Amino acid sequence: MARGFKKRIQQENTENSGFGSRASGRFINKDGLPNVRRKGINVFNRLSWYHTMLNLSSFQFLSYLVVMYVFINFIFATIYYMIGVEHLTGIDKSNPLNEFIDVFFFSSQTFTTVGYGRIAPIGFLASLVATFEAFLGLLTFAIATGLFYGRFSRPRAYLRFSDIAVIAPFQNATALMFRLAPFKNNALTDADVTLSAAIEVTENSGVKSNFYRLETHLSKINTLALNWTIVHKIDENSPFFRFSADDFKKTNIEIIVHVRAFDEVFSNTVVQRSSYVSEEIIYGAQFVPMYYPSISEESTVLDLDKINQYKKVNLPNTEFDQQQ
Amino acid sequence: MARGFKKRIQQENTENSGFGSRASGRFINKDGLPNVRRKGINVFNRLSWYHTMLNLSSFQFLSYLVVMYVFINFIFATIYYMIGVEHLTGIDKSNPLNEFIDVFFFSSQTFTTVGYGRIAPIGFLASLVATFEAFLGLLTFAIATGLFYGRFSRPRAYLRFSDIAVIAPFQNATALMFRLAPFKNNALTDADVTLSAAIEVTENSGVKSNFYRLETHLSKINTLALNWTIVHKIDENSPFFRFSADDFKKTNIEIIVHVRAFDEVFSNTVVQRSSYVSEEIIYGAQFVPMYYPSISEESTVLDLDKINQYKKVNLPNTEFDQQQ
Amino acid sequence: MARGFKKRIQQENTENSGFGSRASGRFINKDGLPNVRRKGINVFNRLSWYHTMLNLSSFQFLSYLVVMYVFINFIFATIYYMIGVEHLTGIDKSNPLNEFIDVFFFSSQTFTTVGYGRIAPIGFLASLVATFEAFLGLLTFAIATGLFYGRFSRPRAYLRFSDIAVIAPFQNATALMFRLAPFKNNALTDADVTLSAAIEVTENSGVKSNFYRLETHLSKINTLALNWTIVHKIDENSPFFRFSADDFKKTNIEIIVHVRAFDEVFSNTVVQRSSYVSEEIIYGAQFVPMYYPSISEESTVLDLDKINQYKKVNLPNTEFDQQQ
Amino acid sequence: MARGFKKRIQQENTENSGFGSRASGRFINKDGLPNVRRKGINVFNRLSWYHTMLNLSSFQFLSYLVVMYVFINFIFATIYYMIGVEHLTGIDKSNPLNEFIDVFFFSSQTFTTVGYGRIAPIGFLASLVATFEAFLGLLTFAIATGLFYGRFSRPRAYLRFSDIAVIAPFQNATALMFRLAPFKNNALTDADVTLSAAIEVTENSGVKSNFYRLETHLSKINTLALNWTIVHKIDENSPFFRFSADDFKKTNIEIIVHVRAFDEVFSNTVVQRSSYVSEEIIYGAQFVPMYYPSISEESTVLDLDKINQYKKVNLPNTEFDQQQ
Repeated sequence: MARGFKKRIQQENTENSGFGSRASGRFINKDGLPNVRRKGINVFNRLSWYHTMLNLSSFQFLSYLVVMYVFINFIFATIYYMIGVEHLTGIDKSNPLNEFIDVFFFSSQTFTTVGYGRIAPIGFLASLVATFEAFLGLLTFAIATGLFYGRFSRPRAYLRFSDIAVIAPFQNATALMFRLAPFKNNALTDADVTLSAAIEVTENSGVKSNFYRLETHLSKINTLALNWTIVHKIDENSPFFRFSADDFKKTNIEIIVHVRAFDEVFSNTVVQRSSYVSEEIIYGAQFVPMYYPSISEESTVLDLDKINQYKKVNLPNTEFDQQQ
Repeated sequence: MARGFKKRIQQENTENSGFGSRASGRFINKDGLPNVRRKGINVFNRLSWYHTMLNLSSFQFLSYLVVMYVFINFIFATIYYMIGVEHLTGIDKSNPLNEFIDVFFFSSQTFTTVGYGRIAPIGFLASLVATFEAFLGLLTFAIATGLFYGRFSRPRAYLRFSDIAVIAPFQNATALMFRLAPFKNNALTDADVTLSAAIEVTENSGVKSNFYRLETHLSKINTLALNWTIVHKIDENSPFFRFSADDFKKTNIEIIVHVRAFDEVFSNTVVQRSSYVSEEIIYGAQFVPMYYPSISEESTVLDLDKINQYKKVNLPNTEFDQQQ
Repeated sequence: MARGFKKRIQQENTENSGFGSRASGRFINKDGLPNVRRKGINVFNRLSWYHTMLNLSSFQFLSYLVVMYVFINFIFATIYYMIGVEHLTGIDKSNPLNEFIDVFFFSSQTFTTVGYGRIAPIGFLASLVATFEAFLGLLTFAIATGLFYGRFSRPRAYLRFSDIAVIAPFQNATALMFRLAPFKNNALTDADVTLSAAIEVTENSGVKSNFYRLETHLSKINTLALNWTIVHKIDENSPFFRFSADDFKKTNIEIIVHVRAFDEVFSNTVVQRSSYVSEEIIYGAQFVPMYYPSISEESTVLDLDKINQYKKVNLPNTEFDQQQ
Repeated sequence: MARGFKKRIQQENTENSGFGSRASGRFINKDGLPNVRRKGINVFNRLSWYHTMLNLSSFQFLSYLVVMYVFINFIFATIYYMIGVEHLTGIDKSNPLNEFIDVFFFSSQTFTTVGYGRIAPIGFLASLVATFEAFLGLLTFAIATGLFYGRFSRPRAYLRFSDIAVIAPFQNATALMFRLAPFKNNALTDADVTLSAAIEVTENSGVKSNFYRLETHLSKINTLALNWTIVHKIDENSPFFRFSADDFKKTNIEIIVHVRAFDEVFSNTVVQRSSYVSEEIIYGAQFVPMYYPSISEESTVLDLDKINQYKKVNLPNTEFDQQQ
């Protein structure tokens, strides 16, 4: 089929996608991150500690903090214990375990600077270590403060994409359509979208991917308040011109979406990416509306659960296709 | 009137507003937020906790913090009480209430890390809980720090819009005018404005809104130091061409304003939106100047209280209209 | 002379400066802020607390913090004193003054959460107040943290402008020139400049200012590493075409400069403005170079003290002017 | 050779580089900072304290904090000691050294607000100093918090440039090529590059540098996921047209690179610069690919250690050159 397919595509490789034409697997994962692994140079230079912290889930992040906290106190407790409990006042000396427990709590009371004073350092060494533990504690919480702020002030688009794209009738022709909607209480304005397609072709030299910029019917929108349906009309300028349901199934296609908007709370540009591969494109379908007037007729209601709802339709001069 | 009205409008729907043409109620509320309610998916996924915190009023925000503080201490007090007051030193054991009061204060002294030590943990369990309460306290204040910063460093335009728009004489024709002024000690530069209009028309298929981009006489301004009067000349290219006072009253119109500027303290782009509906448009009026030289003639004074002041005027070849 | 002057200026008012043509006094102060006072609405709504804090000098800001600190402690000390010193342990009851001094220190130990515990609350009321003072203390330092960060992370261009502009020979004609240089260890790239002129003219209706966009010979620069001399060639397109030394002296002129660049440490756009009025324009002068190769010939040295150094020169077909 | 060389270059000086044509030494250091030293005005006005702190290495920064901490405590210890240890409770008065040690630890316990209370102020003076030390401590940690956040939230591109550029065959001609790759777990999009060349020429007036904008084959890229090879084709429009291997060796050339991209975690534009001088340009070489499909064929692997790997090649109608 590849030869016939190559005939079908008039215009050549138009995109500098940044992806290798011989890369393998999906280019953009569903979460919008490129499907690339990096090796070489050691892992510490290869990881941005800050990017990692910001990408952890809230649960992972908090667990990480707790584990660090316990660990640090354990280390210092050991140090105080080795220095000797006689350098601390108010220790329960009944047995070694109690001694260790008390120095552990002394450590935590120092690290958090709560410093009740029931247990307090008297000796030089213990005082010295405590001096630095309290200092370390404050720096640690200074870093935690920055991380918390970095995490929740990180501008994000909070867009929900439809899981599937459809090939629907559009202006006496067909169009590739998918939709997205902001799902949080954020106000996005001046949104624009960039669409490109990676299409795998077989050449004498083997399988390779070509990249095409896809034109969209309306690529800008003033206010992203309701859902936004992105429409790529399939005409002479589209690489999918004259594609049959079969072609969409048999060809390895990936539609790469890049949305950019302005968030008025962050006062910052936010971006979100996603991608659709062949399996996620439904031939001969149409999305059903997902907003309607409120009962009071005073405002509009956007129902986010409807984002994936579509109905099957016949396409102009193409046989209805049975699959799924 | 709708038919005659449709005749009058030459150019068609030019705007991709992002609002549904069948949405109901005002599109943009006076505060600039879109008049849309979201449903579907559960409320926690639908709310950005950070956006919510930043949109609270200062009073709401502080009340929220205080309530949280009391609530958390109450929880911990209960835990300490259940563990048993014998695990704490310096508790007033005269009666259960005093006991509870003392553990409550112990909790607060731990949470804030003030830790006087008059009341201090001795038992293992109490010490353990205190260890985590102090930790939790510091994290909580880390988050509070981020929220405070997020709240007051949030770039905002601090623009005041005139409550009303006017149809005033302009260059031997008429123009739709409204004005805005920065009302705080912020320095805005490179401001630009985008104007669009939603006009409701009746069709066989029922009532729907069309969107039009409105041209403005000067859509950019270097320094937003004084007030800025936005002027949309009503000529052949305006959807309001040949609109009578009556048309402005009878038709459902909404003028959507989007202002964007650069704030030199935030070093960030700030945006603000507003909108004017039919009731807020005064036919045959003119704004009065709101700035004048200072007595010393050394600087210029901008009087913000004058922003809504206008005087009635006759419009070229239109009868003077009586209403309001 | 105004009439002759009006004859001389071909092109009309090209700028939407945002300044009123009848405003009085200098438009932009030397520090770059517009010379406008706002009145109306009460002062609290008119001041952005954050903008004010960020614009204070370091000394003012720190003094402000110290005064607040002493004031708050004084208030709380009074409250504790009124509640009664018997609600606090370890108070020196020798005389009322000592009592007050001790509650004052207790207050500060609570507000900063240092809580030595030598003085500690025992009664219900004192404990309750202390509970909230510690809470307030932490919130206050949370805000201070944000303000400190806001102050020193505020993107600024750190540009030094020459105090004077010169009319110098340039390409067989003359040009208005001034120069600027980054004076701190910041790296600015992609800088561009916008020049406009306000020229006061006398009309039947009285004195008014016209605004003109001034073309600059090179308005963009890749890397702002050395000094940058801004050149406005005085040709047919310049409002200053055929201006004599006398005209420059007698006419009220203001050159408004707006520089915009990208700082690589802040990773943000930074802007700085300045302005030159007639008195600050020197007719028939030329700047002397302010950078030279280092002794080692390995790098270039920029001498910021030379920024205002110029030498007098004759201008093509204009008599040498004596003044100043 | 200079004359022959000047003949060779058709188009003239096209760039306003911001560098003096008579500056000496490399313009841009390998780290991307301009090779310029500033003098004049005193050093404190010339240094942005914040820029300095952000440019310190982590080790330098932490050492700086520790030194400050010890220093401040030493100062306050001295003050307390001079006030007299009798103003503090719980001091070990066995000998002056122990006294000083104890006041030092008291100071640190106050500065960090840990305040055990074993040592506590009783006298007026000591309490007063402690009041301000605790206050100072909190402000210091407020600043530290801001610095930590400023340091790790500072947007950076994390790009690795190839150490060398090559002159390689390209479209029946030759091209100057070098490559870069993101080496951390950051996601860069919408990257673009600006290339310029500084070429030293000898004139009657002496040696000077001319600046040229270099056209790049593809100057924009959607997603910077894999490596990016920047290609400047050497045709009639290139200042290097008809350059021989010898010319590249003998002429003082500097290629200045400026990359700009959008980082999705920082949600900010990030920039990075680098430069290549004659010694770093290899004539007749070609880079070897640095990415390949993963074993699973499920994703692509980018091997950062390969970034400098190249193989020698013959160039069209140029003799193979042996050197380096």
